[in-house]
Amino acid sequence: MASVRIREAEEGDCGQILRLIRELAEYEKLSDQVQISEEALRADGFGENPLYRCLVADLPPASGDTQGPRVVGYGLYYFIYSTWKGRTVYLEDIYVTPEYRGQGIGSKIIRRVAQVALDQGCSQFRLAVLDWNQRAMALYKALGAQDLTEAEGWHAFTFDGEAMRKLAGK
Amino acid sequence: MASVRIREAEEGDCGQILRLIRELAEYEKLSDQVQISEEALRADGFGENPLYRCLVADLPPASGDTQGPRVVGYGLYYFIYSTWKGRTVYLEDIYVTPEYRGQGIGSKIIRRVAQVALDQGCSQFRLAVLDWNQRAMALYKALGAQDLTEAEGWHAFTFDGEAMRKLAGK
Repeated sequence: MASVRIREAEEGDCGQILRLIRELAEYEKLSDQVQISEEALRADGFGENPLYRCLVADLPPASGDTQGPRVVGYGLYYFIYSTWKGRTVYLEDIYVTPEYRGQGIGSKIIRRVAQVALDQGCSQFRLAVLDWNQRAMALYKALGAQDLTEAEGWHAFTFDGEAMRKLAGK
Repeated sequence: MASVRIREAEEGDCGQILRLIRELAEYEKLSDQVQISEEALRADGFGENPLYRCLVADLPPASGDTQGPRVVGYGLYYFIYSTWKGRTVYLEDIYVTPEYRGQGIGSKIIRRVAQVALDQGCSQFRLAVLDWNQRAMALYKALGAQDLTEAEGWHAFTFDGEAMRKLAGK
């Protein structure tokens, strides 16, 4: 099997990243929630003030293939702020397409994000996972993560668009 | 009772914000986790590339009081990125000191954050709450929030400093 390379995403990868975002949302059984477009990913990640950063795992093109490298996994992250511990990295999505699982690509992406986080002076590395995704939970725990929902009881809350507009009185 | 004003925090508020960060952590029974300093809050929030934004609720000084306004609540937030819904606001902390609760100060802070979020083109507004803090959960639900941990099963995970350094191979 061709060797997979982990590198920083470029604007031209956004179409392939969007394909994987949709695959991940399907895997998470929440694909009706994906409203993002390739144009938004390009503008939000590659403008003057990028809202996120992204690593991709790609395969070199096979000989005679004119399509360029094929992206088979990604890790999308950004920096958040803890009032207890300061600058923190948050891994919003991590995904490897099914036929490339079991090769350690996910772990490589996670390790690379941890390196970026340390270089940026972060004191911790956070992410969220669905409770039925035992495979992912086991991987993160094996890598040294703690489940804060289990340990301390944290629940994630959201005000969606309409609730937010109501709050804002608009 | 003197009327409380909600305004954007200034660098000179950091000492009072830190006092409230500590009060909140004590209330959350997790005060051993607070490692932030006033200097870090100043540098991280009021430099060239602020890592967070903060609203404070303050009281005008009583006549003869030379201490300046007293901060009795705060809401500290930043912007995150959802691969499903794009730019999102995240309210990291919201706190009102006990003697000023029940006056709607918390709701006012939340509404102001929602207004900022809408102005900044956010599609949703997120926060996290501890499962035993039923008072806060009830307030957020009454204001229109959904509990994503309950509804979809999201768990928050963290790699703390040592686990992160191991991941990064350092």
